[in-house]
Amino acid sequence: MKSFASDNYAGVLPEVMAALQQANTEHAKSYGADELTARVRKLFCDVFEADADVFFVFNGTGANVLSISSATQSFNSVLCADISHIYNDESAAPETFTGCRFFPLASNEMGKLVPEVVQQRLIRKGDMHYAQTRLLSITQSTEYGTVYIPDEIKSLTTLAHANDLYVHMDGSRFFNAAASLNCSFKDITAGAGIDILSLGGTKAGMMFGEAVVVFNKDLAKQIAYKHKQSMQLASKTRFIAAQFEAMLTDNTWHTHASHANAMAQLLSAAISKYPGVKVTKPVQANGVFAELPKAWNQTLQEQYPFYIWKEATNEARLMCSFDTTEKDINAFAALMGNM
Amino acid sequence: MKSFASDNYAGVLPEVMAALQQANTEHAKSYGADELTARVRKLFCDVFEADADVFFVFNGTGANVLSISSATQSFNSVLCADISHIYNDESAAPETFTGCRFFPLASNEMGKLVPEVVQQRLIRKGDMHYAQTRLLSITQSTEYGTVYIPDEIKSLTTLAHANDLYVHMDGSRFFNAAASLNCSFKDITAGAGIDILSLGGTKAGMMFGEAVVVFNKDLAKQIAYKHKQSMQLASKTRFIAAQFEAMLTDNTWHTHASHANAMAQLLSAAISKYPGVKVTKPVQANGVFAELPKAWNQTLQEQYPFYIWKEATNEARLMCSFDTTEKDINAFAALMGNM
Amino acid sequence: MKSFASDNYAGVLPEVMAALQQANTEHAKSYGADELTARVRKLFCDVFEADADVFFVFNGTGANVLSISSATQSFNSVLCADISHIYNDESAAPETFTGCRFFPLASNEMGKLVPEVVQQRLIRKGDMHYAQTRLLSITQSTEYGTVYIPDEIKSLTTLAHANDLYVHMDGSRFFNAAASLNCSFKDITAGAGIDILSLGGTKAGMMFGEAVVVFNKDLAKQIAYKHKQSMQLASKTRFIAAQFEAMLTDNTWHTHASHANAMAQLLSAAISKYPGVKVTKPVQANGVFAELPKAWNQTLQEQYPFYIWKEATNEARLMCSFDTTEKDINAFAALMGNM
Amino acid sequence: MKSFASDNYAGVLPEVMAALQQANTEHAKSYGADELTARVRKLFCDVFEADADVFFVFNGTGANVLSISSATQSFNSVLCADISHIYNDESAAPETFTGCRFFPLASNEMGKLVPEVVQQRLIRKGDMHYAQTRLLSITQSTEYGTVYIPDEIKSLTTLAHANDLYVHMDGSRFFNAAASLNCSFKDITAGAGIDILSLGGTKAGMMFGEAVVVFNKDLAKQIAYKHKQSMQLASKTRFIAAQFEAMLTDNTWHTHASHANAMAQLLSAAISKYPGVKVTKPVQANGVFAELPKAWNQTLQEQYPFYIWKEATNEARLMCSFDTTEKDINAFAALMGNM
Repeated sequence: MKSFASDNYAGVLPEVMAALQQANTEHAKSYGADELTARVRKLFCDVFEADADVFFVFNGTGANVLSISSATQSFNSVLCADISHIYNDESAAPETFTGCRFFPLASNEMGKLVPEVVQQRLIRKGDMHYAQTRLLSITQSTEYGTVYIPDEIKSLTTLAHANDLYVHMDGSRFFNAAASLNCSFKDITAGAGIDILSLGGTKAGMMFGEAVVVFNKDLAKQIAYKHKQSMQLASKTRFIAAQFEAMLTDNTWHTHASHANAMAQLLSAAISKYPGVKVTKPVQANGVFAELPKAWNQTLQEQYPFYIWKEATNEARLMCSFDTTEKDINAFAALMGNM
Repeated sequence: MKSFASDNYAGVLPEVMAALQQANTEHAKSYGADELTARVRKLFCDVFEADADVFFVFNGTGANVLSISSATQSFNSVLCADISHIYNDESAAPETFTGCRFFPLASNEMGKLVPEVVQQRLIRKGDMHYAQTRLLSITQSTEYGTVYIPDEIKSLTTLAHANDLYVHMDGSRFFNAAASLNCSFKDITAGAGIDILSLGGTKAGMMFGEAVVVFNKDLAKQIAYKHKQSMQLASKTRFIAAQFEAMLTDNTWHTHASHANAMAQLLSAAISKYPGVKVTKPVQANGVFAELPKAWNQTLQEQYPFYIWKEATNEARLMCSFDTTEKDINAFAALMGNM
Repeated sequence: MKSFASDNYAGVLPEVMAALQQANTEHAKSYGADELTARVRKLFCDVFEADADVFFVFNGTGANVLSISSATQSFNSVLCADISHIYNDESAAPETFTGCRFFPLASNEMGKLVPEVVQQRLIRKGDMHYAQTRLLSITQSTEYGTVYIPDEIKSLTTLAHANDLYVHMDGSRFFNAAASLNCSFKDITAGAGIDILSLGGTKAGMMFGEAVVVFNKDLAKQIAYKHKQSMQLASKTRFIAAQFEAMLTDNTWHTHASHANAMAQLLSAAISKYPGVKVTKPVQANGVFAELPKAWNQTLQEQYPFYIWKEATNEARLMCSFDTTEKDINAFAALMGNM
Repeated sequence: MKSFASDNYAGVLPEVMAALQQANTEHAKSYGADELTARVRKLFCDVFEADADVFFVFNGTGANVLSISSATQSFNSVLCADISHIYNDESAAPETFTGCRFFPLASNEMGKLVPEVVQQRLIRKGDMHYAQTRLLSITQSTEYGTVYIPDEIKSLTTLAHANDLYVHMDGSRFFNAAASLNCSFKDITAGAGIDILSLGGTKAGMMFGEAVVVFNKDLAKQIAYKHKQSMQLASKTRFIAAQFEAMLTDNTWHTHASHANAMAQLLSAAISKYPGVKVTKPVQANGVFAELPKAWNQTLQEQYPFYIWKEATNEARLMCSFDTTEKDINAFAALMGNM
């Protein structure tokens, strides 16, 4: 089966699989105290050009919840986009583990938050009746497949920091964003004021594993304890670290994220030519959003499963991954041509 | 490096690594909706001889916390052994996620709970001032490397059920116990009254992954929601399922768990011959507990790291794993001979 | 000092103070097991014409959080009005204690929820990634001083029940609503499909104390345990029960709630005559919302403190209480006349 | 009815009732911003001879949970006596609200903790797998009716502080302890190293209300937010403050606590003379513990209810309160004489 349902339908990159095998040597210290993990932590500091603290976790929800918990107390609130994954797709895990209130902010038509919208929720500071706002969370690339440029991030982090908020980036598709912008990791993280990052590995081609990258030392104080407490500390951590080493070496991440992004461009072009299709968002990363005739859904989904993002307008979300091929795209577009 | 520190210092079984590669085909549905995962769920029912619900999770703490949360509400309390992993080694994860009180019960010298001790805490039922006891958790094999026989389990589950408690088994080393007892899985789970099991994969030779096996349908109602909420739902679940498939096929689990158990016997015999060494617990699974002269620690640990379980008597815990060899044991014992 | 800031600025009704003194006899069983409390629980059943379970609590936040916790598990979500007290003024207490997600719904210009808006959030049932919606909470009288009529409540409870949601009513100003509607308690609670009610005593003239009134037996099963656990079980419960007895006897509640409502009408009329003043909401209970010239605030608030509800339009919220007098209103209006 | 069941069976002191009436003047700011509350906060600083922060709460569980939450994060653990109220009688409220693990320590035959026992649990600092110990909680007077002398407290706080633990005192019967010791409040709180105190009002003769007294400024930073969040912030706070003002003025607290203590002495003497009775604990505050013939229970409890503390030995707990009289004691003892 091939699909455009989600980049997490794909399997594991060959470079990653090879790294897993190479890491399978003799005994290694558990819970991240091993040499391989130490080496990869250092590699993170190099590629992010920052004195960062790195915590390897199992999945994206774990990365987000751990990140949020490192920056908040239970009487705090978190600001996030109304369309964000942490608001819509992680059950009540954020509340149950952190105790915090989550306030949704209206994202713009690009799926992004802008300072004006954030500003409106910077209210009631010091009022004990109101869950005190402490964190802003943004998603890079966004749930709409768009990408924040460094200046957009800076304008948000500047506002947030001026109001005693930390800024978290949900980067489950961070590599796609970085490849799209053709910028350094630093340009869109520490250099743009990000305090803590959930760096996605799974959707980029890893078997499992994400990393919480802490740029702000305030947040690094107690996160090691919360790491264990949030059930996200792997006993054989080396097998997460090894996968990231493969990703961050020889530009592996860039090769495959660029490919997925390019496939999205190709897909967008291929389906746009049909009069019934309207691509609704700029294609900046590896996702294409497009309104289709509802009558097409069944035939298309039988061969290439995908999700309808918005029922009302039959807007489909079509995700490309590292293993999407031109052949897949041509076959999918051909199906449309037969409708 | 080789060590006797923990079975989680070991790497990944070749059968498991092969299964991971075979599972890395084209796209598969995410979050456990794929065919491989469905197939392995069915395999669990076969090997456990039960209509069980199976939830794949990332690690042991996740398995335990999810299991506990399926059986409790926040005003409940949980009974567990004073030496248990959930009481000593999972931070406050159980409390933070479930809200429950955990009452430690005195384990006997074998590291086991007995009905008489449980009975003493079956108090104040219906008293709203007291966290209402709802779950008993036991560990198989125990933290002392001993094994509950089926009748011992039955006597505990009978008492528990008669008092409206569910019974959870922390089976992070379940395979070692089953191999030691040479019994069916059913004999020490559903057949002995266990309601829910944390089945360990990582320490048995998997890369990551455990399973929550639900035998009691009462507990299956809402656990799917808690599975996601507890940050334990893998997007590429097939890569956990595939590992378990390898373990449960061709008696892979038994081959390697038996080996580890046999190595523990050998280790026990090898070190017992030194007058300074006193093996303190019956060796029934893959761990050996032994008091050593404290002066030996440094030399031994330099070559074969291990943990001191009890400082006062310099009681060492020596864990064998699937890749422990006779050579390792001879080399370790030889170090003792040179003291 | 007299004010229009909040009805909780007022003191204690003479009837209530007398009841407290009368209740101060010899010893009584603690934690609600006393005879007076039993008697008042029965009185609740009479006045609500229902076989209700009644739990006396300390304050409104406690009443709301306990009510919500009786109807939810931690993977659930709650729907409430964007202007509601539970969403804006109870810190993160609801999340911290219940673990749930809270989704704000747009209230209409009357401050009410309507079925169409609720319907839009009845989504993703059975989807483990989404906090499963389990409770709808409405406020009677609303935060805008308006009142739901029985049919409005029924239309909401019908929709909710058809979708497996329970319905909670935050009745911190329930008596004002009931007096305004001139209906029975039953008409706007059990008779209209309400499952659980937070009945406010403090703002109505009690010293402290509210009641959680459970109409749906499903919710009564475990609430006694949550009552204690939520830190809302008073050892000398009789002193809450006695206050409610005073309120519910001889129509005490009606006399004083009607008075407060009438004062709000008078106040609305008195200030409406000034051209700079625009009353913005129908006055149906004991609150008046009015836009004033911002320049007036300081002079008015010095003598009669009140809160600005909406900074942008300088919309004031003016609350009347049982002890608001015509003299207060005339003096306040006179200040406006001098501007 | 009169009883020896609990001091919370008693009603309200006349001085307290008078204060409640006097506080019932016109409007006052809510949520503790009123002048009376400010005045009483200052009074607390005077009587405790400390620059303390004072938070008025509703009940003892609220006071304890708020105190604990001010000193802990969710990955922490708390040490408390195995017989303590927070461990046995507050449901799972402490865990649910703070997320922490609670470790019971063996109290000595006097019901007290001693440094040696605390020392044994000061383990695994910095180990992320272990809930990091952050707070020691002691009870004054203890659950056995005994009293810590200042030096005993100092030895515990010195050990705790040397290990980065804060120390909380559960003082639900603090007044009885202070009266018994005939010392200043400071001698057994800030002067002895206590960081935070739950000061009991209800059992001492108030209608409701306790105070959290914060001596350590580290703990005062965020407690105001947790005060609201823990559902313990009264809108009409003045009515709690007024009661404490009555207690702390003219030595009201001392008069009544001394009386209750004296009655306990009298009771102990009166029942000791019967051969079947064995007083088991030193009578230092207002409670008497005594083993009685089990056959006596029914007759005695019919006239003077009390609780059996320990079933095995039929050890009764007999609590005296401000309104216990010599007549009560003589009548109770006379019942014994008739057995």
